[in-house]
Amino acid sequence: MIFEIAEIEVHAGQEEQFESAVAQASPLFRQAHGCLSMKLERGIEHPSRYRLVVGWNSVDDHMLTFRNSESFQRWRELAGPFFASPPKVEHVSCVLDAFS
Amino acid sequence: MIFEIAEIEVHAGQEEQFESAVAQASPLFRQAHGCLSMKLERGIEHPSRYRLVVGWNSVDDHMLTFRNSESFQRWRELAGPFFASPPKVEHVSCVLDAFS
Repeated sequence: MIFEIAEIEVHAGQEEQFESAVAQASPLFRQAHGCLSMKLERGIEHPSRYRLVVGWNSVDDHMLTFRNSESFQRWRELAGPFFASPPKVEHVSCVLDAFS
Repeated sequence: MIFEIAEIEVHAGQEEQFESAVAQASPLFRQAHGCLSMKLERGIEHPSRYRLVVGWNSVDDHMLTFRNSESFQRWRELAGPFFASPPKVEHVSCVLDAFS
């Protein structure tokens, strides 16, 4: 399992609408091939900065299969209007889960 | 519960030593007041870039209590030598946990 981390800056004042759009879009991820989890984090120091954290079986499940699907188009239709700039996307793997 | 996200660039070639140092330091976090979880994520596109993700009861538990403790000094003694630049630290809260 790997994680997509998309850092998304939202137009100031549109945070609530953006959060609703992400919630509305979540079934698109839940139904996506290889998609295992999805959460949205909001910055405390930077309240217009979000991190969408999506668990995938592989980077290809995200970057090839999902990105080329209609669900990705629909996701961008729902959430894209609130983006203040293009999201910065990276992938990470967990190398230490010390405690929780 | 909030999360500290510390983005840490490590000197290339020292990744393994850094990961060992973080594992060795994990009891310092586990014992810290208000500390609830700790994990270390490594970049897939940028393998010298890590994200230390630490759950705290509050930002103050991290920035006031922990930062002014001997445990923080010890953490920096252990992991600091591997930092290629000062860590970028932010705090986030989870606003949507859609599924997992």
